[in-house]
Amino acid sequence: MTERQDPWLLTPGPLTTSAETKEAMLRDYGSRDSAFVEMNSRIRGRLLKIARVANSHVCVPVQGSGTFAVEATLGTLIPKNQKTLVLINGAYGSRIAKILDYLGRAHECLETPEHVPVNVEALAAKLSESSDIKYVVAVHCETTAGILNPIEEIARTVADRGRYLLIDAMSSFGAIDLAPERVPYDAVIASANKCLEGVPGMGFAIIRESLLATCKGNAHSLSLDLYDQWQALESNGQWRFTPPTHVIAAFDQALDEFEDAGGIAGRYSRYQSNCSTLLAGLRAIGFQTLLPDALQAPIIVTILTPGDPNFEFGEFYDRLNDKGFSVYPGKLTKVESFRIGCIGKLDSQVIKEALAAIETVLTDMGITNLNPLEGNAAIAS
Amino acid sequence: MTERQDPWLLTPGPLTTSAETKEAMLRDYGSRDSAFVEMNSRIRGRLLKIARVANSHVCVPVQGSGTFAVEATLGTLIPKNQKTLVLINGAYGSRIAKILDYLGRAHECLETPEHVPVNVEALAAKLSESSDIKYVVAVHCETTAGILNPIEEIARTVADRGRYLLIDAMSSFGAIDLAPERVPYDAVIASANKCLEGVPGMGFAIIRESLLATCKGNAHSLSLDLYDQWQALESNGQWRFTPPTHVIAAFDQALDEFEDAGGIAGRYSRYQSNCSTLLAGLRAIGFQTLLPDALQAPIIVTILTPGDPNFEFGEFYDRLNDKGFSVYPGKLTKVESFRIGCIGKLDSQVIKEALAAIETVLTDMGITNLNPLEGNAAIAS
Repeated sequence: MTERQDPWLLTPGPLTTSAETKEAMLRDYGSRDSAFVEMNSRIRGRLLKIARVANSHVCVPVQGSGTFAVEATLGTLIPKNQKTLVLINGAYGSRIAKILDYLGRAHECLETPEHVPVNVEALAAKLSESSDIKYVVAVHCETTAGILNPIEEIARTVADRGRYLLIDAMSSFGAIDLAPERVPYDAVIASANKCLEGVPGMGFAIIRESLLATCKGNAHSLSLDLYDQWQALESNGQWRFTPPTHVIAAFDQALDEFEDAGGIAGRYSRYQSNCSTLLAGLRAIGFQTLLPDALQAPIIVTILTPGDPNFEFGEFYDRLNDKGFSVYPGKLTKVESFRIGCIGKLDSQVIKEALAAIETVLTDMGITNLNPLEGNAAIAS
Repeated sequence: MTERQDPWLLTPGPLTTSAETKEAMLRDYGSRDSAFVEMNSRIRGRLLKIARVANSHVCVPVQGSGTFAVEATLGTLIPKNQKTLVLINGAYGSRIAKILDYLGRAHECLETPEHVPVNVEALAAKLSESSDIKYVVAVHCETTAGILNPIEEIARTVADRGRYLLIDAMSSFGAIDLAPERVPYDAVIASANKCLEGVPGMGFAIIRESLLATCKGNAHSLSLDLYDQWQALESNGQWRFTPPTHVIAAFDQALDEFEDAGGIAGRYSRYQSNCSTLLAGLRAIGFQTLLPDALQAPIIVTILTPGDPNFEFGEFYDRLNDKGFSVYPGKLTKVESFRIGCIGKLDSQVIKEALAAIETVLTDMGITNLNPLEGNAAIAS
């Protein structure tokens, strides 16, 4: 451990990547060179294969963070005069509504608290009473709390009522299967740098081809027009604007490793092991976590801030970071919390070492009372 | 040469970068870690110092290609109800107009042919007669032909008439000085991967702070809202959405090398030497280049396609690529051409080797007549 230059990134991203993935960035590719054009085609094909929708959907990559890919998908797929329903139980759902505000596209929100899954019955009722809502946007795993939403029930409810479904699967794609036979969707959005363990700098959308084909002229932005990007990629295999060549090369390598490690099943298994180890260890130390296990995605865990007056998150973070583990602040609106991620190129041995470091830091800080701050416990239970 | 895995990229980008710049990507940074936050602050400060506008302007980075940064700057700075004049003599000027079309923001275009600089007298006349035009957008070096526009005269004309000037300096920033005492501007836009020799994946705008401070609510896009991005960076030093951490680390290293090599003066000198060597060599071989030397920026050279029936660009490109040199197709609308770039981490020795390789390829292809295709010569002269 002591030889490592970088801390383990126990966060929602950017994440720890393999040495080989980073080393793939030691080459300069020309964006028009055949090797690079083939690499892009290969990546697009691999992503469709992971999603198992190669017969019905196409993959369109885009520069930027995951939010860029989400905004590009919303802007490209939703016509300017159509209304959308956003299912919100955290910051990423709220961000989708904010994007639609920027775009000036009509929308309603169906919101549940951050520790409560999307209410499928309320969704069904909303769609039944609102014939003007044609699009529904859902977040698969909401990393605000780390909650897994009931995506199969959501998808069935939306499909049964003939609406379009767009899924933000940023933090789940590649680790939690969106089985297309049970989860029909029109678009799923993710990035290179979450469960697929590439480096940050590009995202992608997997979009039903028959829908995308109707979307010319919808987009609010040239840079984020996925119809235009798709047309360019189909015509000559090239991105429209300078692609992040090194990021793409790293992604190709990360996908090699993904396939070699057993694809979605392999990744799910490792992350689940990381998460179980983390939850058991945190509880053994005395922390309280926010979610019941049935709602906990194996992606990131929310921990209630201890009530001990010696606990100050900034100091806890710095001390843990000095020991080689980078954790993350909380994002809950009503509960003081922090988060520890389970994803990236790391295994349960790393989690065990992180837990040992946490115990040392707690001792060093003189923290004995790990019960949540007053007020927190009631919300979490 | 034979040990190199990658061809030299003699293109407008992506470009050849140094080994050290690429090696800076071998680390995983957490986006909230203090070392990474400091790195971003350092990069923003260095870019302002290069531009020599630290007292008046701020630097706002954004994910994506240069076009993303251009669109973000236009969308953030130009209010929805204001009219813009776009100075066009190539594809990048046209792209700016296209972005404004997407944004639904009123604009007029002042266009000259691709081998003719912006007409400053026509600009002055246009601004005098059109009091409703408040913003002017110019391209410093238009890589469509490789032409350098008279930015000092443009800036003086715009400033004298009290309009705002936004400059797309994508392919010139860091190599051709935009001396602020002679070239007043409200925003200049560039990317990490041109003359600053970082890797692609992020751009930036250097914006007059007093103007940016008035721009809340202008943007058409959450992802591309530079006001919002600026506010976040000022408040906690962090990007709003997952930053391309590896690309940023590479940029910091590239800026070290930029400063060590004498800043703008050093870079200009090397590129000018590359360009002179290239022009002299091409003409010695018998090629005709598009631009007179007075209009030629030391960035990329446009070469008129030879009339020899054996010349086929695709084959010429592939054969040169096999020898380790990647050139670029032309982008002129009315003249058959191709392009060879002078920028990136390479010197005139590389250009000499490229010229030797070109001579060999011409011989191998049985090309003897390098005079331009009929019709091309008249336009270029």
